[in-house]
Amino acid sequence: MQLPLGFRYAGVACGIKASGKKDLAIISTDTPAICAGVYTQNIVRATSIDWNRRMTPCDSFRALVVNSGNANACTGFDGIKNNQTMACEVANHLDTEPANVGVLSTGIIGVQLPMKEVIAGIDAATTALSAEEENFTAASVAITTTDKSPKTNHLTYNIDGDQVRISAMAKGAGMIGPKMATMLAVVMTDAALTPTVAQSILKTANDKSFNRISVEGHMSTNDAVMLIASGKSKAKLDSAALILQLTSFITNTCIDLAKQIPADGEGATHLIEIVVNGAKHDGDADRIARTIANSALVKTAITGGDPNWGRIVSAAGYAGADIDADAISLKINGHLLFEQGQPVSFNPRQVSIAIAENFETKIELTVGGGAGQSNHWTSDLTVDYVRFNSEYTT
Amino acid sequence: MQLPLGFRYAGVACGIKASGKKDLAIISTDTPAICAGVYTQNIVRATSIDWNRRMTPCDSFRALVVNSGNANACTGFDGIKNNQTMACEVANHLDTEPANVGVLSTGIIGVQLPMKEVIAGIDAATTALSAEEENFTAASVAITTTDKSPKTNHLTYNIDGDQVRISAMAKGAGMIGPKMATMLAVVMTDAALTPTVAQSILKTANDKSFNRISVEGHMSTNDAVMLIASGKSKAKLDSAALILQLTSFITNTCIDLAKQIPADGEGATHLIEIVVNGAKHDGDADRIARTIANSALVKTAITGGDPNWGRIVSAAGYAGADIDADAISLKINGHLLFEQGQPVSFNPRQVSIAIAENFETKIELTVGGGAGQSNHWTSDLTVDYVRFNSEYTT
Repeated sequence: MQLPLGFRYAGVACGIKASGKKDLAIISTDTPAICAGVYTQNIVRATSIDWNRRMTPCDSFRALVVNSGNANACTGFDGIKNNQTMACEVANHLDTEPANVGVLSTGIIGVQLPMKEVIAGIDAATTALSAEEENFTAASVAITTTDKSPKTNHLTYNIDGDQVRISAMAKGAGMIGPKMATMLAVVMTDAALTPTVAQSILKTANDKSFNRISVEGHMSTNDAVMLIASGKSKAKLDSAALILQLTSFITNTCIDLAKQIPADGEGATHLIEIVVNGAKHDGDADRIARTIANSALVKTAITGGDPNWGRIVSAAGYAGADIDADAISLKINGHLLFEQGQPVSFNPRQVSIAIAENFETKIELTVGGGAGQSNHWTSDLTVDYVRFNSEYTT
Repeated sequence: MQLPLGFRYAGVACGIKASGKKDLAIISTDTPAICAGVYTQNIVRATSIDWNRRMTPCDSFRALVVNSGNANACTGFDGIKNNQTMACEVANHLDTEPANVGVLSTGIIGVQLPMKEVIAGIDAATTALSAEEENFTAASVAITTTDKSPKTNHLTYNIDGDQVRISAMAKGAGMIGPKMATMLAVVMTDAALTPTVAQSILKTANDKSFNRISVEGHMSTNDAVMLIASGKSKAKLDSAALILQLTSFITNTCIDLAKQIPADGEGATHLIEIVVNGAKHDGDADRIARTIANSALVKTAITGGDPNWGRIVSAAGYAGADIDADAISLKINGHLLFEQGQPVSFNPRQVSIAIAENFETKIELTVGGGAGQSNHWTSDLTVDYVRFNSEYTT
């Protein structure tokens, strides 16, 4: 693994989490860098989302501070002030302006951050900043909440002998007790980009990765995906083809990372991929894939190893896409179950075993002869998911 | 209870259900009657839906045949023929045209109806037709699938001393194993209406009742609500005010019946009512109520007696409605949890008990100062729901 040049990392425990686990991360760049961001569309959103929206895209980025354990959402004026304080503290330590410091938060909502602890944590983290792999790992742990493990991905490639390095970390959408789901991801590269190009690459990558996963379809107050480009690679990205190549590598990095999130969903026993082909346009295909992914009946069928084509086909039928019911065909893990609007004869036991014995289930739906396609990843819905999310003790 | 004049009922077991339970119902009128219908919007729909869509609204209705245990959906040309045969058999027995006979089916999809049994069942049911209460009850049982009990409702009122009688039956959206969810309801009245007025009354009533319930948001291939008016009441509905009064009574009958469906949802331990006020228009309010009702995180919170305002408020935020986050206030069972975009201090244990100790939970959300309002009923999401829907043995 080769981390992108020009970055430093730190991950510390400052006391936001009662468990004493790591809860504050800083990612900084040695010199002003490019930063892009895409954010939750929820109207009820955290103050950090508004803060970062004002910052990105930019070419003066110096640091991102991420705290876990508290989302600083629905916290009013004090919450806004605390978010500013976080940016100011980091800026003071790194000798830059607060406007060059991004902030991300995840965790419980409606509760004020313990600012004394947060400020001490920022002090410790800025002191600890280094380019070492163990610090990258510490940061990737510090951004998690109920994730079973940190989620990271790395990719390196050459342009005329000069390396471009991409590293990324994410946290998943696990939620227990009164906490909220939040998906955060930060992609770092040492490629030299402009803010506009970085924003465009991130939008493309996000649309094909983090925007195509769901655990239960609940959009969070704090979801954010950031791309930071230090420009320290010597590789020259001086053609559209090279930008497209980088876009493709960053997209693949994000897809791999995104799939780790539903795979680690609470109580998940299957990662389900839904592939839709033949729609009139990609928007229709996306609507169908998303509707199937969010169907509790489809998810519970996969949990039980049930090759229940009826639940899948009927979910496609109410997705709001312009399709012909007689043109629908369906495969699960390669087995044809439904063809041109008609059920076909198949061995249910064989298909059931194919679902039960593999962690990944692939649902392939063809809905006509159009060029529209999309895919989506989700987790199944298990008794454990309900147990986790309905547990509550006051 | 006074059943509407001019109707006869029968409910028999003909062998569609392996259990030997009642599975075929007929509701007939003594003379040609008014019939209106509203149907599933799913593109993947049963042949019976297309059949009834062609029939309603009409003034020549004579009978409705309903089978349970088999939805006759995704069954191709043979399915269309079998549906026609059902209408023809009933028409022959009642000396009318097939075009005056409605058909409803519910149950497993993708499997052909056992027509020998169905034809024998139609023979037995037409012979058994009577206006007796026990026959009404038999019909209401015969339309059910996984419902814990039949769902019926009755209402009688006077216009200048002449009675108008309304009786209704429904089946719920319970689904186990490879079967599909289907909601069916039939409303009967002896009021004298025109087809146009009947259709308009049914649309109004349905929009405020069956269209506002969900168990898991999965729209079925076979959902249908029918209104049959025999015209045998002597009451004169000769003013707009009297039509509005009847609309209101039929709507209330449907609301009561509709609420019985999520209350009887698989594994449900709570009936949840979501009331949204202050939206810019009713459409926005409806979008918010529906999004909250379909949130697995909200449903599991209620299961666990968790006064988790964050899950509710954030679901409102991503509903796609034009609202201001700072204008949102929330009450659960009368307890104020969130006001004008800010969490308020409350006793979580007290609210938790208020949820846990009542079967009905009322979520009241105000999203601004607009006139838009809506409400929605749903069931909670329990470990038993997942158990039921993921059980599968080949």
